[in-house]
Amino acid sequence: MISLPELSAALRSGALSPVEHVRDTCERLAADTHNAVVLLDTDRALADAAARADELARGEWRGPLHGVAVGVKDLFDVAGLPTRAGSDVLADAPPATVDAAAVTRLRAAGAVVVAKLHTHEFAYGPTGDVSASGPARNPHDPTRITGGSSSGSAATVAAGHLALTLGTDTGASVRTPAALCGVVGLKPAYGRLPVEGAFPLSETCDHVGLLTADVDGAALAWDALTGTGTPAVTTRVGVLVDDYWRAVDPALTAAVDAAVARLRADGVAVVEIRTPMIDELAAAYPVIVGAEAYATHARWFEDRPEAYQPATRVRLEPNRDLPAHVYVEALRTRRRLVAEFRAAVDGVDALVLPTTRLRATPIGQEDVDGVAVRPALLALTLPFNLTGWPAVSVPGTTEGLPAGVQVVGVALDERGVLALAARLA
Amino acid sequence: MISLPELSAALRSGALSPVEHVRDTCERLAADTHNAVVLLDTDRALADAAARADELARGEWRGPLHGVAVGVKDLFDVAGLPTRAGSDVLADAPPATVDAAAVTRLRAAGAVVVAKLHTHEFAYGPTGDVSASGPARNPHDPTRITGGSSSGSAATVAAGHLALTLGTDTGASVRTPAALCGVVGLKPAYGRLPVEGAFPLSETCDHVGLLTADVDGAALAWDALTGTGTPAVTTRVGVLVDDYWRAVDPALTAAVDAAVARLRADGVAVVEIRTPMIDELAAAYPVIVGAEAYATHARWFEDRPEAYQPATRVRLEPNRDLPAHVYVEALRTRRRLVAEFRAAVDGVDALVLPTTRLRATPIGQEDVDGVAVRPALLALTLPFNLTGWPAVSVPGTTEGLPAGVQVVGVALDERGVLALAARLA
Repeated sequence: MISLPELSAALRSGALSPVEHVRDTCERLAADTHNAVVLLDTDRALADAAARADELARGEWRGPLHGVAVGVKDLFDVAGLPTRAGSDVLADAPPATVDAAAVTRLRAAGAVVVAKLHTHEFAYGPTGDVSASGPARNPHDPTRITGGSSSGSAATVAAGHLALTLGTDTGASVRTPAALCGVVGLKPAYGRLPVEGAFPLSETCDHVGLLTADVDGAALAWDALTGTGTPAVTTRVGVLVDDYWRAVDPALTAAVDAAVARLRADGVAVVEIRTPMIDELAAAYPVIVGAEAYATHARWFEDRPEAYQPATRVRLEPNRDLPAHVYVEALRTRRRLVAEFRAAVDGVDALVLPTTRLRATPIGQEDVDGVAVRPALLALTLPFNLTGWPAVSVPGTTEGLPAGVQVVGVALDERGVLALAARLA
Repeated sequence: MISLPELSAALRSGALSPVEHVRDTCERLAADTHNAVVLLDTDRALADAAARADELARGEWRGPLHGVAVGVKDLFDVAGLPTRAGSDVLADAPPATVDAAAVTRLRAAGAVVVAKLHTHEFAYGPTGDVSASGPARNPHDPTRITGGSSSGSAATVAAGHLALTLGTDTGASVRTPAALCGVVGLKPAYGRLPVEGAFPLSETCDHVGLLTADVDGAALAWDALTGTGTPAVTTRVGVLVDDYWRAVDPALTAAVDAAVARLRADGVAVVEIRTPMIDELAAAYPVIVGAEAYATHARWFEDRPEAYQPATRVRLEPNRDLPAHVYVEALRTRRRLVAEFRAAVDGVDALVLPTTRLRATPIGQEDVDGVAVRPALLALTLPFNLTGWPAVSVPGTTEGLPAGVQVVGVALDERGVLALAARLA
């Protein structure tokens, strides 16, 4: 994989030119075997790289992303390219005229957008195997899923094609593919990166996030995009002990236990926390996202349901007749139980837990040994879309398939969460 | 009517004792002929008055509300009294155990809560003639409505019983009864006074507000409850010229014209503003409030619909099957069109317009000369529940029945709005 800090330093020093780097990246992406790339914009990317190279030659440096090739999930508008969101519904979408706000920020920071990446159809699923272009494939085992919905954003980093990609996370969609592909995925606090120009799934749960090979890369990209400063120091973390939070795959439990042991050895206090409200809080999630997603799709779905992948159709359909008062009640439940959740974790800086209950499962398989895959890939991440707290998934120590360890900020901001995550490895 | 600043001064100087004032107020309220009072708490009020008197004797003064008798709409919890919200559904409600947050603030400021006041059933209507205890009656003509839903809060001020009352305003409910009863009604900006402990109608539109006899009284009460300071000076107001904003009753148009002429003479620039989005924005209102209201009532409504007044039942019922995606879309429309509305009024400090399209209509009459009463009493106020901007209704110059002139803050806060309203008279 490509370490963003190392790549950034090479570009800055001149050891690597932006044009050479971008050309090489485009070649790698063109040869990708994980079905991770949906659109490669080589011409524009090479022109942008040349412009960044000219700036460097004049001594102008935009910061650590200067000249760095990046890919964005095909949910973000990129001017001149269509946004298809993994769906045949948008097969004939015209080119976007304006960049999404997060893409604008990437470019302003010097990054070169080279490709649009595979997404689970309309970002409505955590597996990455439901898309108009077929399933994305996990670089650790191409018969297995990448996780989703930012499937291509995780796979291209894991495959060593890109040092930085942009994703979105409504319930799992940055952290889960990061976990399953063995990369770092940061979901910032709600609203911290702009969602404008990213195709919406759920306006009250959507977050824009970043994927990188390592934690230092995520911190570098975060600072470059937001100008944020020094992290707070963590002295006290919580582990969640109710059944809800338990992983199914023992490798995940082992990875979290190892991470927590490392923090303890490092002098961090570890406290056990009970969250009796978690089942009821989690039950509000599909109601909220379902109602908001259906509102976006209502017209298309009624006009041509057959344009959706069957798995997406099955998820959208029950929301057609969901009563408004049930949705309003779910929002009230969310506010009430998020307050209870916050009270339950009061006093710790952060939480450490598995990102998922299973590691990458075989493509197309809906359950594994009686465990339903979809909820197993959503349950441990979605609570932090409801709370809006910053959370990162980092690769845990494990044999074989990657296991994601999740660090969630309670008192910490994104930089604090990343600083804590850096201490786990 | 009782001027709050004069009453406050008399209480402070000792010219009037709190006990004497509260006793006299309770006697007046007991003899009220407008069906404005639903619960009179004389014993507790006299004990509180005695406590306030003792404080004064010790030289302790809590501020301008010290010892002032106040009434609150029977939508606010008052510890020890049931909250019935004008409904047989709550006929057996137990006494509240905790004061509503706004009531706590009133008491902390020295006010003495003497009574709970008539409300349109569950605050779901702008007329004030739909309630378990029958219609409230307008002090200017007891055969006519008070307006609602803060019917008793307006009528008791207009009748000269109280100098200050608390109401709520979800679409009209402080400003419209103030307008129809010829008193001042302030709806602060969204969230400025706390809604906790007030029975909800619509969490995204509910505002707590104040009613007084005069603008100075509203300013004095506002400062006492919020500690806010000096108002900005207004130099530029807007008048809204699309058909939507036109009053039906020419007395209302005349009252606004007179107010605007006074401002012009006073050196204020007046600009005409077009708001082409207003019909679509207003159409989102019943969807939003309907969904949120039904969510609160769902269980009761399904168990015993007959406990509701027929007029309330008719309004709640269609929301049972309202689809969630239609509500979500209404919220999106609201956000988009509020932004357009804000852009349309950019550059003015405030708007001046009628509060209602009709003056007080006969009790029980649903339309007057072919004009439907309910929308005529809601249309000009509800846009500012959707925007959340501060707005006040003040009595305009008129013959006969009162006509309300509404001042809405665009760049102004509540104190600015009140200062501008003071210049209209």
